[in-house]
Amino acid sequence: MSNRGPRTFRRSTDGRLTGHPGAGGLASALAPVATATNATWVAAAITDADRQAAAEGPIDDNGVRFRFLTPDRVRYRQAYDEIANATLWFLNHRLFDLARQPRLDPRWWEAWEAYREINRCFAVAVMEAAPPGATVLVQDYHLALVGRWLRHERPDLRTVHFTHTPFCDPADMGILPGQVASELLTGLTSHRACGFHTSRWAEAFAGCCRDVLGIEPLTFVAPLGPDIEGLREVAQSAECAAAGSRLEELVGDRRVILRVDRIEPSKNLLRGFLAFDQLLESRPDWRGRVVFVAVVYPSREHLADYAAYRVEVEELVARVNQRWARPGWTPIVLDTEDNLPRSVAALTRYDVLLVNPIRDGLNLVAKEGPLLNGRDGVLLLSREAGAWSELGTAAIGLDPFDVRATSAALQTALTMGETDRRDHARAVRAAAGARGPRDWLADQLAAAGAG
Amino acid sequence: MSNRGPRTFRRSTDGRLTGHPGAGGLASALAPVATATNATWVAAAITDADRQAAAEGPIDDNGVRFRFLTPDRVRYRQAYDEIANATLWFLNHRLFDLARQPRLDPRWWEAWEAYREINRCFAVAVMEAAPPGATVLVQDYHLALVGRWLRHERPDLRTVHFTHTPFCDPADMGILPGQVASELLTGLTSHRACGFHTSRWAEAFAGCCRDVLGIEPLTFVAPLGPDIEGLREVAQSAECAAAGSRLEELVGDRRVILRVDRIEPSKNLLRGFLAFDQLLESRPDWRGRVVFVAVVYPSREHLADYAAYRVEVEELVARVNQRWARPGWTPIVLDTEDNLPRSVAALTRYDVLLVNPIRDGLNLVAKEGPLLNGRDGVLLLSREAGAWSELGTAAIGLDPFDVRATSAALQTALTMGETDRRDHARAVRAAAGARGPRDWLADQLAAAGAG
Repeated sequence: MSNRGPRTFRRSTDGRLTGHPGAGGLASALAPVATATNATWVAAAITDADRQAAAEGPIDDNGVRFRFLTPDRVRYRQAYDEIANATLWFLNHRLFDLARQPRLDPRWWEAWEAYREINRCFAVAVMEAAPPGATVLVQDYHLALVGRWLRHERPDLRTVHFTHTPFCDPADMGILPGQVASELLTGLTSHRACGFHTSRWAEAFAGCCRDVLGIEPLTFVAPLGPDIEGLREVAQSAECAAAGSRLEELVGDRRVILRVDRIEPSKNLLRGFLAFDQLLESRPDWRGRVVFVAVVYPSREHLADYAAYRVEVEELVARVNQRWARPGWTPIVLDTEDNLPRSVAALTRYDVLLVNPIRDGLNLVAKEGPLLNGRDGVLLLSREAGAWSELGTAAIGLDPFDVRATSAALQTALTMGETDRRDHARAVRAAAGARGPRDWLADQLAAAGAG
Repeated sequence: MSNRGPRTFRRSTDGRLTGHPGAGGLASALAPVATATNATWVAAAITDADRQAAAEGPIDDNGVRFRFLTPDRVRYRQAYDEIANATLWFLNHRLFDLARQPRLDPRWWEAWEAYREINRCFAVAVMEAAPPGATVLVQDYHLALVGRWLRHERPDLRTVHFTHTPFCDPADMGILPGQVASELLTGLTSHRACGFHTSRWAEAFAGCCRDVLGIEPLTFVAPLGPDIEGLREVAQSAECAAAGSRLEELVGDRRVILRVDRIEPSKNLLRGFLAFDQLLESRPDWRGRVVFVAVVYPSREHLADYAAYRVEVEELVARVNQRWARPGWTPIVLDTEDNLPRSVAALTRYDVLLVNPIRDGLNLVAKEGPLLNGRDGVLLLSREAGAWSELGTAAIGLDPFDVRATSAALQTALTMGETDRRDHARAVRAAAGARGPRDWLADQLAAAGAG
């Protein structure tokens, strides 16, 4: 069960409902796993066509059975926007500007009630769908409360919860009122075990449980790996080839610094562009010889914080380009379309991949990039990304707040000798390809006692 | 030694330099102690007259010997604004909007160099001024680095450091680059011991030292107490009586909710006004019958964040007043003049004192208020204030982010019966008056081994 399913529906011109890959990082990570199991997928209907598909009864699409929930739209938005995204996401990624956020006013408390209701809807749907003794894999922070109901009302089920974000440190859990913290942690510890992408988040969660509940939770660490077969298929597609040609035309024989991200405050886009600006200032020899390709697509734009952040990003890019551009050379190329073939084409072409989040559950791009890249590109990776625990011995580390050091790391990466690049790329590829989605799934099943 | 001295100088009309009480919370807390000792005070010259006084040689003013430093103005502003106030203050109070701050670019690193230089100036001045075996009490986050020089170059001195702010949690120390964190903590642990207002900050500091330096530091806990004799003198002054009359005229027989604070993001002014707005909305019976007196004076206005926060505060107050005001009743009275007699007059008059910081080293107002108040007023105190560890058993606790609960606490306080108010006020007074500045000084001297 997850908030979004791996497929979403559209009404085609002939009136039939057809399934398509869903949006969102989680959905794309889970999609290849879904087709490999005999599972039922419980998720919220996102689009109108999803709702219509749900109304037409159980759905079997491409080998996956779906059960779409159709919660009240207003209550769903309150739960999803206010609690899941504007509260829990912000808490787990340390994004609160605490002088102003969170503001736990009556409106927030009403949204918290909605979050409870939506979680209850999901729990009921799963209890209806799950045969006796079934294994239930609950995904992410949208569904933190379902565990308690499942445990009390369906003790036969083997349930685990997996968190794809970081988990907040114990000191930050105190930002939430005690009863809310307690309810969230009780919901999570009601499962057989709680999984995370790295031991750092598992330890933060355990610390919260000790502080708030006085108990030691059962946790497991199961980093997700990229769906490399799926990505290679995309890489061999005609769309990807076309996107690659367009990119080649744009950058020519210049070096390419690449980032592929949602436009998301936790991804630290601003400091990445500032570091590039600093590079062009301090190293004039790079002017005209390097392009920063930023494949960064909008996300959660109905949240004011995200809309504001996008404006800041675009303004900063415009300033940097205005400062340094010459005829025939635009320093930063901003591509804000969410287009998988285009992202894959860029990942095969980079010389330097910049992944500098201020905090990140895992960061799958840091694994996908090296496996797709064909130029022995260099991976610059934030120590605050979950993937650092797997890639840290091979990647070049970044302190995400340190613009000067990030700029220096760009210079190091751009000037690395051929042999060093090859050794670096080989080590990063080995670490990035060590696990795939099936390993991650197997770990969850094992933690549920169903392995 | 402290950044600001307890006295500042002005050139009087006859051309003489005369000393006056200095601005800032630390200076006013230390002033009564200064006159009771045979100490030399080392501080930075803040005003032009301070610099002139410094140039005229050692100063003896009102029984205190001063040694003013006159550092380069540009370097001083970089150290004071960029590092002490915009970095260390923000770090210790969890005020960073991490998607945007801190931005450790070359300008920041230059300021960090300046912070080192200014700390070095202070260390040199103390080494010149201190006789063999002298005790040196170093105050606050502006002077985190002096300890290492004092220890190496003057091992005869007995030095302690006292932090008046909170101390950042270990997870937050990682926001700073490793070398900076290490330098700060090495500077602090070079003293015989490091003091804090509450064990919570001492433990946070110890956790940082374990994580970054791998050592267990020596700490002590010594909460400051109010200078109640000094405050009572002010309370009996003609200025205070006049201010009291003006206030009485303004509020009449209405209930008074009071806050006395710098306009400072950590003080949580916005959520305080939102809670009051919520009270007026949900409890119509209070409309016209209660006045929120906010004695909140500007601070650090040359920092953009502070200027922006002040605008937000004023706009919110205007909105609340516009929403609820009636002829003859202004719901929130904003007094932005930093005027001690006026603050004292308000503290004697409140029915409810709201102290709701998101994080605070101690909060002296929470102790001063109950000792001055003459109406068995109720103290609402944030659990995130250092003073909570002393006053928590007596005060009504607040979760600073929870606007709904803060509003409910205002209602509870306003409707408390006479007997309960008397019992509450007696308990709060006893806790607030348990220690004075001399106890705090004695604890520091004992920690220095000079007790």
